[in-house]
Amino acid sequence: MKAYILLTPGPTPLPPSVSAKMAEPILHHRTKEFGKVFDQVISDMQYVYRTQQTVVMMTASGTGTMESAVVNLMSPGDKALVHTTGAFGDRFVKILRTYGLNPVVVAEEWGHSASPEKLLAAIKANPDLKACFFQHTDTSTGVVNDLPRLAQVVREHSDALVVVDTVSGLGAEELEFDAWNLDVAVTGSQKGLMNGPGLGFAAVSERAWKAVAAAKLPRFYFDWTTMKASLPNQETPYTPGVNLVVAQAEALRMLKEEGIENVWKRTAELAAYTRKQVTGRLGLKLYAKDPADILTGAWLPEGVDGNKLLAAMLAEERISIANGQEKLKGRIIRIAHMGYITKADVDAGLDSLARRLQPVRA
Amino acid sequence: MKAYILLTPGPTPLPPSVSAKMAEPILHHRTKEFGKVFDQVISDMQYVYRTQQTVVMMTASGTGTMESAVVNLMSPGDKALVHTTGAFGDRFVKILRTYGLNPVVVAEEWGHSASPEKLLAAIKANPDLKACFFQHTDTSTGVVNDLPRLAQVVREHSDALVVVDTVSGLGAEELEFDAWNLDVAVTGSQKGLMNGPGLGFAAVSERAWKAVAAAKLPRFYFDWTTMKASLPNQETPYTPGVNLVVAQAEALRMLKEEGIENVWKRTAELAAYTRKQVTGRLGLKLYAKDPADILTGAWLPEGVDGNKLLAAMLAEERISIANGQEKLKGRIIRIAHMGYITKADVDAGLDSLARRLQPVRA
Repeated sequence: MKAYILLTPGPTPLPPSVSAKMAEPILHHRTKEFGKVFDQVISDMQYVYRTQQTVVMMTASGTGTMESAVVNLMSPGDKALVHTTGAFGDRFVKILRTYGLNPVVVAEEWGHSASPEKLLAAIKANPDLKACFFQHTDTSTGVVNDLPRLAQVVREHSDALVVVDTVSGLGAEELEFDAWNLDVAVTGSQKGLMNGPGLGFAAVSERAWKAVAAAKLPRFYFDWTTMKASLPNQETPYTPGVNLVVAQAEALRMLKEEGIENVWKRTAELAAYTRKQVTGRLGLKLYAKDPADILTGAWLPEGVDGNKLLAAMLAEERISIANGQEKLKGRIIRIAHMGYITKADVDAGLDSLARRLQPVRA
Repeated sequence: MKAYILLTPGPTPLPPSVSAKMAEPILHHRTKEFGKVFDQVISDMQYVYRTQQTVVMMTASGTGTMESAVVNLMSPGDKALVHTTGAFGDRFVKILRTYGLNPVVVAEEWGHSASPEKLLAAIKANPDLKACFFQHTDTSTGVVNDLPRLAQVVREHSDALVVVDTVSGLGAEELEFDAWNLDVAVTGSQKGLMNGPGLGFAAVSERAWKAVAAAKLPRFYFDWTTMKASLPNQETPYTPGVNLVVAQAEALRMLKEEGIENVWKRTAELAAYTRKQVTGRLGLKLYAKDPADILTGAWLPEGVDGNKLLAAMLAEERISIANGQEKLKGRIIRIAHMGYITKADVDAGLDSLARRLQPVRA
């Protein structure tokens, strides 16, 4: 019996004390006991986001929080820009189109981060943008975007809101919500936040709340206004994922204890180590031109079927490494090193890859 | 240190083996190992729903699944009817209005179930209904609706879809999705299904799928079509609440082992016992004219402040009984007896109430 080693970019493994919290007897969500835990989660999320602004919570996975950003900020006819660097940027495009909005799309070649120059040109060509949507890190390609610079370009040349999907970045890569002048940053519980999937959060600036008040797209379950109104009562409008909230409180306690800057540093060091091993020891070519610290994507050698390789690793060794998405399926591997993933976990994955790729090279 | 006794109508307590599953090392959601568990959950949900039709799953709480029914079935301009028997029926009205639909509302006095005669009159006055929305049981009032008869009235006099919120009823009160000719039944994981909150399900008939294909209201995260398309691959379109799914599989295994008809019987027996104790021993008047088996609502004696009473029970004895909602807050109590709530739990609540109400009567 082998331990299960999870090197996928979400869900990531849970610290034992977080798992233990998940199994505690369930609390009713309209009690002071639960309210106190929920309130602590919101306040600790402000710490992780590095913000004094409002943070709201919803029971949903990352895609739900992305949709919540669209429906709470936009009205029919509003113009939006999506600067996409992969599958998750493309998802913002799909959501906006679902609601009848036809966004301006600035698309980077996969593996490249968002170019501030291209953004500037698109903003100048579209002076009437309501919001610009970005990824912090796109797990489909393993790139990190230069958010402070992108946000600055928007601020200097437009009144558009800066909306960020940091589902895979928060709690792993540096993010400064207030200092970088972001308007909205949505995230999920199952990556850097070291919890099971099922909770989402949004940090929302004062500027963004004004847009929310005016936004006309329909929303009920995802309505941030009712979530905000419930915060002073230390509760959510609807029954939240109670076990996940209690577990989240423990994971956030751990992040605070380590200190968020130390978390960023630890993640960056493990990323640097992994990149070095992947290129040196394994002899693979990195996929991303601007690699993120949350995961390392690498091209497999010609003739190696990634689907078979990863399936065999999982079946024979219980090591779970992510495949490429969409057009990259079977051609790249993605090794995550965020959240509670340790150097020992990464080494187990690298050892297995080294053994399995050797015959190909021999 | 006293054990926490949860007598609230959701979340309800979890069986120990379900809690233990919640704490297991997390699985990646795109693996065969998880896919097998998910597939079992869907198939066991068909067993619980008593249906051969498709069941889809979403990561959200009950209100999210209610909204999913509205956005997947309706188009702008469609006419809907809501037959409301309490706060959750009213919620369907609010959701429909949020999407610009102005439903025909048939409202019963709180505590009364939906009258088939009133329904028939409303249907005759509105021959062009697209869907009729009902509650199976409304936890705000503790009534159960005569769904087979209501569904029959709709079928005989209209082409409208029969849409049911069974968030609090499924896995506790009798429900026969196929035999009763229902089109949609949405539910949540945290009541009769004996799991933590955060998962939602919808059973969807063939007739309803045709409506889904034509429905024009916008939806992305809650789009049933993408959920259905992912079922053959034993997966969900977006990262599901993995821990909750694994825990749900165990809770459903227990429900199947007992047999769903035995679960209904056990719940009905505990409900009959509770009603007898509440009226006899406690001398309280039942709130509902048509009481459900999931919970018993009862009027507090004149001069008793329900808010203070319930707060004291929770603080001093860690017994959680639900307050009245909205206009009933502080005036009624609601003792749940569904899911994993046992006779011993109910007795602990009744004992505490007997002690605390005695001075009022003396």
